[in-house]
Amino acid sequence: MAKNLTSRDTDYSRWYNELVVKADLAQNSGVRGCMVIKPYGYGIWERVQAELDQRFKATGHENAYFPLFIPKSYFSKEASHVEGFAKECAVVTHYRLKNAEDGSGVVVDEDAKLEEELIVRPTSETIIWDTYRDWIQSYRDLPILVNQWANVVRWEMRTRLFLRTAEFLWQEGHTAHATKTEAIAEAEQMLDVYADVVENIMAIPVLKGTKSPNERFAGALETYCIEALMQDGKALQAGTSHFLGQNFAKAFDVKFQTKEGTVEHVWATSWGVSTRLMGALIMTHSDDNGLVIPPKLAPIQVVIVPIYRGEEQLEEISVVARKLKAEMEAKGLRVKFDNRDTHKPGWKFNEYELKGVPVRLAIGPKDLEKGTVEVARRDTLEKEYLQQEGIATKIENLLEQIQLNMFQKAVDFREENSHKADTWDEFKALIKKKGGFVYAHWDGTPETEEKIKELTKATIRCIPLDQKYEDGKCILTGNPSKGRVVFAVAY
Amino acid sequence: MAKNLTSRDTDYSRWYNELVVKADLAQNSGVRGCMVIKPYGYGIWERVQAELDQRFKATGHENAYFPLFIPKSYFSKEASHVEGFAKECAVVTHYRLKNAEDGSGVVVDEDAKLEEELIVRPTSETIIWDTYRDWIQSYRDLPILVNQWANVVRWEMRTRLFLRTAEFLWQEGHTAHATKTEAIAEAEQMLDVYADVVENIMAIPVLKGTKSPNERFAGALETYCIEALMQDGKALQAGTSHFLGQNFAKAFDVKFQTKEGTVEHVWATSWGVSTRLMGALIMTHSDDNGLVIPPKLAPIQVVIVPIYRGEEQLEEISVVARKLKAEMEAKGLRVKFDNRDTHKPGWKFNEYELKGVPVRLAIGPKDLEKGTVEVARRDTLEKEYLQQEGIATKIENLLEQIQLNMFQKAVDFREENSHKADTWDEFKALIKKKGGFVYAHWDGTPETEEKIKELTKATIRCIPLDQKYEDGKCILTGNPSKGRVVFAVAY
Repeated sequence: MAKNLTSRDTDYSRWYNELVVKADLAQNSGVRGCMVIKPYGYGIWERVQAELDQRFKATGHENAYFPLFIPKSYFSKEASHVEGFAKECAVVTHYRLKNAEDGSGVVVDEDAKLEEELIVRPTSETIIWDTYRDWIQSYRDLPILVNQWANVVRWEMRTRLFLRTAEFLWQEGHTAHATKTEAIAEAEQMLDVYADVVENIMAIPVLKGTKSPNERFAGALETYCIEALMQDGKALQAGTSHFLGQNFAKAFDVKFQTKEGTVEHVWATSWGVSTRLMGALIMTHSDDNGLVIPPKLAPIQVVIVPIYRGEEQLEEISVVARKLKAEMEAKGLRVKFDNRDTHKPGWKFNEYELKGVPVRLAIGPKDLEKGTVEVARRDTLEKEYLQQEGIATKIENLLEQIQLNMFQKAVDFREENSHKADTWDEFKALIKKKGGFVYAHWDGTPETEEKIKELTKATIRCIPLDQKYEDGKCILTGNPSKGRVVFAVAY
Repeated sequence: MAKNLTSRDTDYSRWYNELVVKADLAQNSGVRGCMVIKPYGYGIWERVQAELDQRFKATGHENAYFPLFIPKSYFSKEASHVEGFAKECAVVTHYRLKNAEDGSGVVVDEDAKLEEELIVRPTSETIIWDTYRDWIQSYRDLPILVNQWANVVRWEMRTRLFLRTAEFLWQEGHTAHATKTEAIAEAEQMLDVYADVVENIMAIPVLKGTKSPNERFAGALETYCIEALMQDGKALQAGTSHFLGQNFAKAFDVKFQTKEGTVEHVWATSWGVSTRLMGALIMTHSDDNGLVIPPKLAPIQVVIVPIYRGEEQLEEISVVARKLKAEMEAKGLRVKFDNRDTHKPGWKFNEYELKGVPVRLAIGPKDLEKGTVEVARRDTLEKEYLQQEGIATKIENLLEQIQLNMFQKAVDFREENSHKADTWDEFKALIKKKGGFVYAHWDGTPETEEKIKELTKATIRCIPLDQKYEDGKCILTGNPSKGRVVFAVAY
């Protein structure tokens, strides 16, 4: 490869790490486990954000902002939550530095020790429910439909850009409802919103399901999830939506007066997706030449590269290029004309392939004669010559085709890598050799799931929402089961 | 006042605090010094963000994201920066909690002590310039025009909602340039961008100027600022843009090869505005009845309140209200029809006045007969009856008028409260009795500025960019001066 990019077959994990850095998406920082999201990567994330935010608002949600810090004691209030979360986290213990007496720099001022340590939020249920107590007295105050865009910190020991970082960016929705039914409907609605954006904008197909108790969010009664399949056969959890029951309302004493005059605890949901989605995007579509970005997310959808010798030719080509650019921009397309004289066309071709720009137009002297332009699409790497006449409409259609093709390709890949296993040997072989989603019967116990994980590294990714009733026997224990669940080795 | 709001004359500071809470903009949280920005307040902030972001992009900037944490040692690298910043800040010393042995909750795990403490960013120059070292080798890599939307923490002892909080939201631009001239032009350009948004969107008039050395940003060679005047005669710094020279490039060893082949340090700027602007917004426009929000920022621009008796009347009025709403929305106006039967019209009038909704329409049975609607504007509290016919255009025009009127009113207030002082007694009297901006001669020394602050609490808010050459004598020392600077007591 011209880009010195390790091929996927050689080492998938290395390919991923190299690609993230070489394509200018993100890099490691001087702070262990914390990444820098570079402008090109952030530009893609901003579009994901905008698509989500628009749908949150369309479903009645408003944004708000809650504190970065959470007093340590808050975590102890919801018993299962503290077990799941409060351990690996950044702890603020002091609020001042001072000059070192030996002049060597600054040191922590021991006189400025906090009475109670503050935790940098790993998630915000506790601080938010502590606030909701003030907001909710009556059924008239419900529902509360709030979302927050924020950074969170979970002290991970092994980190990987986008997939698992100590600090990451996300949104977390936190809603409060008068009834259980309404809260469950909310959790399900937000799962649909996530699936819509991930499938129709990011072109990543997902399975919708619920988590087994083992994989549930700490404090939830039900965790809904969308699960995607990566090119290396591993699963990636792309988003979760939790029905929290009355757990947090009870822990933080949030009650309301009903229409009928009784007093009850409030019902809750929370739901989130993060910059981890960037990892899913890369591992679903990209190839040995670099990124492949779906047109709906691409910061640059079309790049025009002039092929010329000498100033005069460049000038002639530029006239045409600028005209085509203007025509495409009039249709709302994001177009770049790269007329830099510091880099050769071949270098530029490589660069935009690496960056995953969906469509590349090249214009040379012959194109001027013939009124043509060379059109290369990134997803299939196919090229063709098209007449310049009416190019904007043609490219607009092509971008739509690319978007659909990328999604279909990913769906096909997932179908090819989804299998049923009916015996333990079959199961082990599938997980070990092919990876992918394995549909198998499970007896419904945490112990069996735990044992399967121990033996194969595979976990239950979800119990599909569209699970079919089917009598069967657990793949490991042979105990009865009423339907198949989806196993995979996961990121 | 119906809203139990302290009047401004009684106690301006209390009026402010009460208003922020009662109008649902923000509230204090369970974490000392950290605020919760409520949906209504965040909705206004989102519009400020969008207006800024759009202009940042139009001037060639891209967004990116850098780590929340900064290793302690980074601060020591730029000598004046550490003096200005690294002291009052949140320090992360541990990365794990554990269950207390006595079962009382969780405690800090002393085995999980960080080798080097991490500081929660008070501003990001150091971590960003540590990153830019990787990004910049040649003049071809310049300029770098990057902005970040982020939360920052400065451990303030006395906090006030929006004006001074331990955690706040802001944007910080950090740019790198090949030449001094270009960096200065960038810093000046961004000051203009800020002034544009603050004046034309927030309707807050500002003075543009530079800071005296005493008030300069820690590490800057020049700090440009915009200064606004609040209703109580105090100044509020609304935004700053810094020319940082080569200070951070030198501290973090960021060099580039010039076109000519020499190697030089990179030139830098940084610039930021924060949620503090929300404080400026409130203290510029609002009154004893509550908030007054400029139409361009108002989450709800027009509210329609039905005046009715009984279901049937409400139904008749609703038909008209929905029609008017649809007409206004077709013009892009943000309209709410409040048909709740849980609250009376009087309560609603009060509520939307408190929330600062620019225009209120009321429709009663008589309006149905006459084809009219009662229109009340929030800024002047004037009411008139208008024909329903063509209401959308009339309201659209009215909102533009309100926007302009609010700005003009604030300009008039500032002019009435701007004075020249030529003697020390005059100066003292003006600062003490009237507050406001006082234009006076200053001998240019930090000692004099310090002394004036000590004696009067007034500081130099800025040296105006449009300062006129004028021979004069320093207000305090009598030493020669070439032009007036602007003094005020500041927030």
